Formats: sequence, C-alpha cells, structure tokens
Amino acid sequence: MQKGAILVLSGPSGAGKSTIINAASDEIGEYYFSISTTTREPRVGEENGVDYFFVSKESFEEDIKAENFLEYAEVHGNYYGTSLKPVRQALEEGKLVIFDIDVQGHRLVRAKMNDITTSAFITPPTLSELETRLRARCTDDESVIVNRVENAKDEILAVGEYDFRIINDSIEKATKDFIVLANAARLKEGQEDEEKFLKDWLG
Amino acid sequence: MQKGAILVLSGPSGAGKSTIINAASDEIGEYYFSISTTTREPRVGEENGVDYFFVSKESFEEDIKAENFLEYAEVHGNYYGTSLKPVRQALEEGKLVIFDIDVQGHRLVRAKMNDITTSAFITPPTLSELETRLRARCTDDESVIVNRVENAKDEILAVGEYDFRIINDSIEKATKDFIVLANAARLKEGQEDEEKFLKDWLG
Repeated sequence: MQKGAILVLSGPSGAGKSTIINAASDEIGEYYFSISTTTREPRVGEENGVDYFFVSKESFEEDIKAENFLEYAEVHGNYYGTSLKPVRQALEEGKLVIFDIDVQGHRLVRAKMNDITTSAFITPPTLSELETRLRARCTDDESVIVNRVENAKDEILAVGEYDFRIINDSIEKATKDFIVLANAARLKEGQEDEEKFLKDWLG
Repeated sequence: MQKGAILVLSGPSGAGKSTIINAASDEIGEYYFSISTTTREPRVGEENGVDYFFVSKESFEEDIKAENFLEYAEVHGNYYGTSLKPVRQALEEGKLVIFDIDVQGHRLVRAKMNDITTSAFITPPTLSELETRLRARCTDDESVIVNRVENAKDEILAVGEYDFRIINDSIEKATKDFIVLANAARLKEGQEDEEKFLKDWLG
C-alpha cells in the first residue's frame, strides 16, 4: 500500500501555480513536487533535475515501452511525461505528491490513482487578466503568448473535471486556499482503492 | 448569487456523524445544520425544529407539488425531505450548510447544486464494527439493528460517488479530518455554476 496522496494542479501558464506552491511551502508539510521528463532542449537557465529531467527521444520512447510513465503526451514534436518511479517512492514515504500537469495529464492520473487524488484548477480571474499578466512578465515573445492564451481557452473547458477551482486574484488569498487544499488532499493519504476498501469493509 | 457552500455527509446510522459535527462545532466557523422535514411520528424525546420538522402527509405533498424540496424520498411509507427555503437563506447569509442525508439525497443535491457542494462518506472501519456499535448503544431493538446493517451494506457501495471518505476509528482523528473537510468545503463559497463561470472567464 502506498502511504501518500496526490494533489494535481492544472491551469494556464501565468496562473501563478509555482508562486503559490512556493509561498505555501512551509505550511503544507512534507511534499514531493513532481518533476516532468521531456525531450525538448533546455532553455537558458533551466537545470536538469530542477526544471525538468531532460532526456533523449530514444530514452523517452524506451520508457514508454517499459510502461515507466504515469502519464505522457507529445506536444509540438516533443515528449513530456511523468516518470512513475520517483512518484511511487514519494508515495511510499508517505509524502504528498504535487503535480503541475495539463488537463490530459490530470485525466490519466485520475484513471490510474483516483482513490488518493485530489485536484484543483488554478486560474487568473479572467482570460483577459491572464493575457495582461503574460505580457507583463516580458519573458515570452508574441507567438508564445498567443499560443498560451489559445491553450488556456481550451483547457478552461475542463474546469468541471477538477475537485476545486482556485481563482488567483490575490496571491495571499490563493496561497491560503492552496494550504486548505493541501490539507484536504492529505485526507486521502494511504486510502485503499475502492474495490479493496469495499471488500475489507464488508468483511 | 448564493454566498455559502454545501457539505454533504452520508454514512450509516452509528457512524458517529452527529458526534463528529458537535465535537468540531467550535472550529468550523458559522454553519447551518440542515434539519429534515418528515411525516413520521416524533419518537419519545424528539423535538419539532430540532430533530426534524414534523408535518402532515398533506402538507408534505403540497410542498412536493410546489417544488419546495431540494430532495425528498419516501421510506417505509413516510416522507423525508429537505426544504429549500432555510437552505437558500443560509446560503445567502454565506453560511456553510451541512447535510446529513442518504446516498439518494446526495445525488439530488449534486444534481442541483454541484458547484458549491463537497461531500464525504463517514463510516466505522468495518461492517462488523458498525454492528458492534449499534448493539452497544442499546437504543434500538433487534429488527431496527438488522435493518440499519442491511441499509449500510447497500449505501457503502456508493462510497465512490463522494469526494472524501472519513473512517471513524477514533473520534479525535475523525473530528480533525472533519475540520479539514469543512475548511475545504468553504473553498466553494459563492462559486458560480460552471456555465456562468466559463462565460464570465472567457469574456
């Protein structure tokens, strides 16, 4: 039995997910932030094992065949995925595993580990506010911003699949909400899957 | 817009729901515990407006026709239901509305107020432990106990429809879990329904 629990966060780039997790970091107990594996090239300033695990396409495809991914997807010719091994290890250590993954990834985690999973969609209050924030960062060029906005329009349609919505209109409020959410996610720590629970319960 | 949120609790009679709510009462902020309306006769010690609203069959059926119930059911020839009016009022006052209702009632609340609803199934660790507790109370005769155990066997099969499970093997632990749950339920305070949220968000 795995002793930990899973908290999936999705939401557009620019929603403030990383900021919120960092701000809440001291108040949510021991957790493991799942690092994705990708075949895309590292950008300036990105570190292997911090931002992503950077691997070759061959290595990624071998891991797909060996069923070493909890979830993966191909986006614009690059693979992105979550390796099972570090997640399993963190769960065995009783940690809360936090994922920052997309709508598709959330579906796959739900399908495989529903009984220990809680999820939230984190978003700025409106699409136009998202666009404003992306431009204010001055880190992305226009085509990247347009792409992120289009993605956000698609992803928001899946908001109903999530247990909770967090509207980030104030970082203090969103961080407080996130701490409540992390505590709630821990209610599922070590929870048996439904079939086993029912078998044991009925005796 | 309604400013409050809903927390639905289900689980077998003998799971300790009332004990847990009372124990947590000082720590979960302002809430309204929804009182059901019934056409059955009051038992010794039961008070109108405390345990139930006791009404006539005619009055109940009028309220059904007038769509005054959030949910209702007929059990062994008696009606049981939740009047909409006090629930709406408590929600408008921004309170957390707590329901102690059955699996069927949970489905109906979900269908009508999904966006502000969080739910948990509260249960003793096993069916045989439930039976032990029911006998230890010495308040029910054998046929009632048998009936409650049979009901529990049916209701537990719906455990997967709930957001959370709370296993009451220690009242202290279950109360702590319930407080976390009530805080999480408040994350949905005033949450717009999905359709309206998407419309506003996309702008």
